[in-house]
Amino acid sequence: MILGGGFGGLYAATSFRHRGDLSITVVDRRNFHLFQPLLYQVATGELSPSDIAFPLRVVLSNRKNTRVLLGEATDLDAGNRRLLLADGTAEPYDVLIISTGSRTHYFGNDAWEERAPGLKSIEDATRIRHRILYAFEMAEKTHDPDERRAWLTFAVVGAGPTGVELAGALGEIANDTLRGDFRNIRPEEARILLLDNSSRVLSPFAEPLSAKAEQALIRLGVRSILGVRVTSVDATGVTIHRESGDEHIRANTVIWAAGVAAAGFGKVVADRTGATMDRAGRVLVDPFCNVPGHPEIFVIGDGASLKDADGKPLPGVAPVAMQQGRYVAGVIRRRLEGKPVEPFRYVDKGSLAVIGRASAVAQFGGEKLQLHGLFAWLVWLFVHLMYLVSFQNRLLVFIRWAFNYLTYNRGARLITGDPLPVVQEPPPDTPETLKPSTPTDRQAQQPQPTR
Amino acid sequence: MILGGGFGGLYAATSFRHRGDLSITVVDRRNFHLFQPLLYQVATGELSPSDIAFPLRVVLSNRKNTRVLLGEATDLDAGNRRLLLADGTAEPYDVLIISTGSRTHYFGNDAWEERAPGLKSIEDATRIRHRILYAFEMAEKTHDPDERRAWLTFAVVGAGPTGVELAGALGEIANDTLRGDFRNIRPEEARILLLDNSSRVLSPFAEPLSAKAEQALIRLGVRSILGVRVTSVDATGVTIHRESGDEHIRANTVIWAAGVAAAGFGKVVADRTGATMDRAGRVLVDPFCNVPGHPEIFVIGDGASLKDADGKPLPGVAPVAMQQGRYVAGVIRRRLEGKPVEPFRYVDKGSLAVIGRASAVAQFGGEKLQLHGLFAWLVWLFVHLMYLVSFQNRLLVFIRWAFNYLTYNRGARLITGDPLPVVQEPPPDTPETLKPSTPTDRQAQQPQPTR
Repeated sequence: MILGGGFGGLYAATSFRHRGDLSITVVDRRNFHLFQPLLYQVATGELSPSDIAFPLRVVLSNRKNTRVLLGEATDLDAGNRRLLLADGTAEPYDVLIISTGSRTHYFGNDAWEERAPGLKSIEDATRIRHRILYAFEMAEKTHDPDERRAWLTFAVVGAGPTGVELAGALGEIANDTLRGDFRNIRPEEARILLLDNSSRVLSPFAEPLSAKAEQALIRLGVRSILGVRVTSVDATGVTIHRESGDEHIRANTVIWAAGVAAAGFGKVVADRTGATMDRAGRVLVDPFCNVPGHPEIFVIGDGASLKDADGKPLPGVAPVAMQQGRYVAGVIRRRLEGKPVEPFRYVDKGSLAVIGRASAVAQFGGEKLQLHGLFAWLVWLFVHLMYLVSFQNRLLVFIRWAFNYLTYNRGARLITGDPLPVVQEPPPDTPETLKPSTPTDRQAQQPQPTR
Repeated sequence: MILGGGFGGLYAATSFRHRGDLSITVVDRRNFHLFQPLLYQVATGELSPSDIAFPLRVVLSNRKNTRVLLGEATDLDAGNRRLLLADGTAEPYDVLIISTGSRTHYFGNDAWEERAPGLKSIEDATRIRHRILYAFEMAEKTHDPDERRAWLTFAVVGAGPTGVELAGALGEIANDTLRGDFRNIRPEEARILLLDNSSRVLSPFAEPLSAKAEQALIRLGVRSILGVRVTSVDATGVTIHRESGDEHIRANTVIWAAGVAAAGFGKVVADRTGATMDRAGRVLVDPFCNVPGHPEIFVIGDGASLKDADGKPLPGVAPVAMQQGRYVAGVIRRRLEGKPVEPFRYVDKGSLAVIGRASAVAQFGGEKLQLHGLFAWLVWLFVHLMYLVSFQNRLLVFIRWAFNYLTYNRGARLITGDPLPVVQEPPPDTPETLKPSTPTDRQAQQPQPTR
């Protein structure tokens, strides 16, 4: 039984193809596999949700030994080998692979979530898309210059790959996509701020690539504010702390790309098996990805804590989950055949981060081969298209990208959800017939304590 | 000023192209034009929302005399010629074109909306998609045969074009799309019921076409139950009334395609101008689409009540709105030039309704030319692709259709929104650790009075 249809779970499930004697169940609370590396493109209106989400039943439909179960795991009965679901049913297993991924982490400030959404799910992405597009609409509408400036200020917290991709895409939206669409504002006047407490952007990459990325961001109008810590997020913006003192940045749109933690099921696993969790909620596994003392339970992907041969912790990226998924499927098969198994060994095929149009950074073989600019971007494009699961979507994504590249447009610029969002909206006035126009002060109406 | 960016408003806005001296404002509460005729394809997972929704700013960006305002109209100050918006601002106008469209109408039973969503917005469509896909997932999961049958029963209320299109698409989902995706159920066993109080399906069409459509539906596994009135919709399904007595049909998925009424702004117009409304909330306009006594206010599209030359009321379809949009733009231009204007005359170019794969009905010249089957479907395909506003989307839609036709797949089969929906879910059990599996009786948990 496999819990979670992300990269880890899906790659495990598809690695049992020649074992018709095994019965595989994939449990997920969503009916689709989400191609997370492109989620930022949904958040920025370049792709549609269905371009990067593939129904699990379709991906697995020709595996007759595999069934898909829509359900949310709530508990684990490790003694009787049963997984308990939210609807009250219990699913028995012989072997369990747990690949429940990660969630946005606010370092203890969960109240910030409402003001600064993270980017982990389709809903997160459409919510962020909503906020970005809505901010330009409100800037167009308001007559108050301060208000307008607040609507045109976008703060992205976290300068890792996700933060850089979001900030870069925001730069393109402001400079290219929306050009000419408004009458009262010039979208290119938007201020896009990228905040991080590290001293450089893309800190997992080699230093020269960080510098290249920062230059590319500047060309897109993104200003990096580094070496700062966010101490508060509220209705008026963010407060940052640096050695020289605190500063408040007024911004009506804040996006959180600063941290992830393991999804909540890790705690259940730890509680029920006695395993240890690290600070980010990941379960410490043995070199075979097993929960210690439970050779029938594997934890893989973002929810697992494991070190590579050099003693460095494995990063929370898709390739680790994919390789672990394939690896544990192999371990299970070999153990059934009575063959010995080797510990998991991560093969780092390289890292990629896209910044914008024809602009990316890449490194391979540790930091031995470094690429940037157009060539890195073409590599990024190729790799992502190749990994997209279904052919139909690959073609659709390619067409969208080609159009966007040629026309600077973004086809999925929809504000969906509530017709007019409640977030950062003034409370509805008591309907007074024929009330005269009064500019309202949003800040005054939604006071929030500044921490 | 144009209120509403649907077919009527958009066609009006784009008809002022050579009048740079006029200043046009399009007000809409959404940031996109929705191509409603294909909305049922979003509801049935064939297309993505962004395939049929086009940002208004993009459609109108090269019209320098036109601005787009995101806002919801709440009131009309006809004396001072001002439109009042929900955010408390007032927008002055010289001439106002009101094209606010229609909404789902439950004939006084608004409580049914929760159980039987209608299909008017992107959110409606993704909600219906959610329910349809979720029903198959629940049927796969349950072990109770009655429960399974209730999840596999789909009742579509209303056998007009929308109801027929939805029922036909449901038939294809059950018979083709989901084939082989499940392990415990056979999706083709789904019961799809099409309910209407008329004596035939597609009653606006010629009788022979109704018969053809009903045959085509039967081949898709859709059962039409005609000459019945729905008297109740509750958690257990629908109750229908026929002369021989009442019958209750247990169905966990009910979709409402039975009626539309004018959007709420019509009432404001009637209140503020003294105009008359008909039973469906539409404003009675004069032959120039003007509100009587207000040559500066036009009402067009689904929100207007007007008769054609034969004294028959104009239908609530997109071509009427498009033609009226172009027409009132012409009236405004001619009046400014001091030229006389002719009353509005609707040119009926024909009617089309699609039933499924390679199956549609069409009539042109009243009922003179009738088509059905593959040829009608190709006409439908061509017409809809031609009317799709942007080239990018037209191509994407074409590719999706081509793939769906060849593979029987549907690329946008996503259950989005809440991770697990609350609708028709049992209330969450008090979490009892290691509680044994107990099938729950959903009916007992969500009692609703049967009318």
